[in-house]
Amino acid sequence: MVVASFRVEKQDSQSRARAGVLTLPHGEVLTPVFMPVGTQATVKGLTPVELEALGAQIVLANTYHLYLRPGPELVAALGGLHALMAWERPILTDSGGFQVFSLGFGREHGVGKIAKTFPAEAGGGVQAGTGGRGHARLTRVDEDGVTFTSHIDGSPHRLTPERSIRIQEDLGADVILAFDECTSPLAGYEYTRQALARTHRWAERCLAARQPTPQALFGIVQGGEYQDLREESARFIASLPFDGVAIGGSLGQSKADMHRVLDWTVPHLPDAWPRHLLGIGEPEDLFAGVARGVDMFDCVAPTRLGRHGVLYVPDGRLHIDNAAYREDPAPIQDGCDCYTCRHFSRAYLRHLFVANEMLGPRLATIHNLRFLVRLVEEMRQSILAGRFAACQRAFLDRWQAARA
Amino acid sequence: MVVASFRVEKQDSQSRARAGVLTLPHGEVLTPVFMPVGTQATVKGLTPVELEALGAQIVLANTYHLYLRPGPELVAALGGLHALMAWERPILTDSGGFQVFSLGFGREHGVGKIAKTFPAEAGGGVQAGTGGRGHARLTRVDEDGVTFTSHIDGSPHRLTPERSIRIQEDLGADVILAFDECTSPLAGYEYTRQALARTHRWAERCLAARQPTPQALFGIVQGGEYQDLREESARFIASLPFDGVAIGGSLGQSKADMHRVLDWTVPHLPDAWPRHLLGIGEPEDLFAGVARGVDMFDCVAPTRLGRHGVLYVPDGRLHIDNAAYREDPAPIQDGCDCYTCRHFSRAYLRHLFVANEMLGPRLATIHNLRFLVRLVEEMRQSILAGRFAACQRAFLDRWQAARA
Repeated sequence: MVVASFRVEKQDSQSRARAGVLTLPHGEVLTPVFMPVGTQATVKGLTPVELEALGAQIVLANTYHLYLRPGPELVAALGGLHALMAWERPILTDSGGFQVFSLGFGREHGVGKIAKTFPAEAGGGVQAGTGGRGHARLTRVDEDGVTFTSHIDGSPHRLTPERSIRIQEDLGADVILAFDECTSPLAGYEYTRQALARTHRWAERCLAARQPTPQALFGIVQGGEYQDLREESARFIASLPFDGVAIGGSLGQSKADMHRVLDWTVPHLPDAWPRHLLGIGEPEDLFAGVARGVDMFDCVAPTRLGRHGVLYVPDGRLHIDNAAYREDPAPIQDGCDCYTCRHFSRAYLRHLFVANEMLGPRLATIHNLRFLVRLVEEMRQSILAGRFAACQRAFLDRWQAARA
Repeated sequence: MVVASFRVEKQDSQSRARAGVLTLPHGEVLTPVFMPVGTQATVKGLTPVELEALGAQIVLANTYHLYLRPGPELVAALGGLHALMAWERPILTDSGGFQVFSLGFGREHGVGKIAKTFPAEAGGGVQAGTGGRGHARLTRVDEDGVTFTSHIDGSPHRLTPERSIRIQEDLGADVILAFDECTSPLAGYEYTRQALARTHRWAERCLAARQPTPQALFGIVQGGEYQDLREESARFIASLPFDGVAIGGSLGQSKADMHRVLDWTVPHLPDAWPRHLLGIGEPEDLFAGVARGVDMFDCVAPTRLGRHGVLYVPDGRLHIDNAAYREDPAPIQDGCDCYTCRHFSRAYLRHLFVANEMLGPRLATIHNLRFLVRLVEEMRQSILAGRFAACQRAFLDRWQAARA
């Protein structure tokens, strides 16, 4: 069943960048697109009205979190995620795989999507020990699925490909993802290879398990930082009847590694599929991704940074609690069209953060999200106008100069 | 200088309730009116757009807090409170007197506007001892003004009538209040009498200190829970060239006491003055106040309760984290026209509170403020229609029945 239709409007001549239109049950998404993250069925602090006003076309919600709380049956009984959140535009849910591993194995070893330490060869099975928050945290993978403990109360749970799909059908997002094992950057080649083979078997089970809902199902490419595994995964996922693809897992130890992973992967994916790069969304990464053929992004950075008073501006990041802004009557960013910049000064923002007022994180989040959404809108316009390379150069020259 | 014009549109025939129009530099305020409290130049969690949408006509900000942070000179340099907050409608600032005492004396003795213990005869001077938060908290009154320590960092400060007026002129609210001593409910008759005489001398100094700004200056009636002092204060303040009046200080130990204080005070105030009852705003208190001739109210209860998930409904208060609402698809209040009730279920609100999401307190605050703003709008309509008593009876029958 084809439920998502994706049309490439314009292919850049000097890179893999492209502008497209993804048509989903709740509307069209113009790509490339940056989607705010609404982990627990809410983009932290913002209403749907504000998300619309800042140009969000689609939001991501996390299956792992919503499975644990409030539970997929309850979400379904209340009419699905769209009705629950009062968000009438498209939604994408991840499969739960990433959180199962990142809140178990990943959190204990302090590793994220880009490893800070050199990957060591790991043993046959992934088993995490006792967590540090007062209850055992155990993640155990077998051929059929994953057993894990809740990060909320330590209760035991199990996800399988079939269960993940059923949960995502209950949640009712426009785009759902296949259930995968997100291997640690610390896992060596042999373990990553075995896990990848299992993830591929799970991909087929996800396709078999899907019911005739109007939801697009995306496959997930894994394979860690290994070229042969990434290529194999891209080819295998491309051979299956998915509606699109997400690129997940460890992307290596540097931004250069991440770029290589994309260069290995994207050429083997169908041009007709929308491609989502999971969990990546710093401004420079958005350019790098788009240039390598990525259409869709999500990242918690703009919301998380905003809550801590760190604000994106064209020449880097601004820490609003800095005393330098105490009397600054300027908006966060001159010319920015976000609600915050149109109404409030840096001095007021700083006051709100210093005084620990809720409105501060909210206004900062609005600005950061608008900054990224607009940046990707500008990339799209530049692709359509045949000047993506110039757009990228102009942004990065200023962005990187300020960081040098 | 007359800067505020107040016109009584309709006087209720069975009570002192009245409907009026208060014209201020930033617009008209239809009375009776409930004003949200924006202590630190922000109504906690809400944008000005949301305040407008829920029908707020005027907000109150606290001189004490803004004097300490970010400071009146900075607010003035940034264009005043209206520009700082991006709030284009009227603002009222209190004088700082209440917080100087409530954050000093009041906090230590655990007393608020209505005493929980019987008032004891107090000595000649108010001197609070060492506060419990790591620094000395000392409030000392003399004929000229008050010396106190900041609740933020323990630094020493001094307010006088002249300084309070100058600070409020820097802040730039439409309505400013005379600087007064808010005596503790624990103060006895003799101390309250002496303090009242001093507050009256300060009232004259405030009038003498005001500059020709387009700000309305309200006097404050004090006198604790003593009939002769309240009557004397009302008559004295009424004899001065103020633009309106606020009723402050200890209102006794019960709602009946508060009603008596209003019954003693209001008959001695000019009909042509708008009358503000400081810091009172529970639904039943709004009816009691309006019936006794009060035109303006402010209270932190709706915002504070909202942040803790306690929601006003016509038959009382609803604690949204209660398990009973886990699967409840209904809005907080059927038929409520607030943004929250038009878009979200009790089950979603409960999820947000249980998951500790920022959006929960925000949505709850919107509902509670709209509930009170609309309640007072309904009182106004009922006064204009000559059916205030029926409106009051209908509301209180349901409200009190549920609490019985």
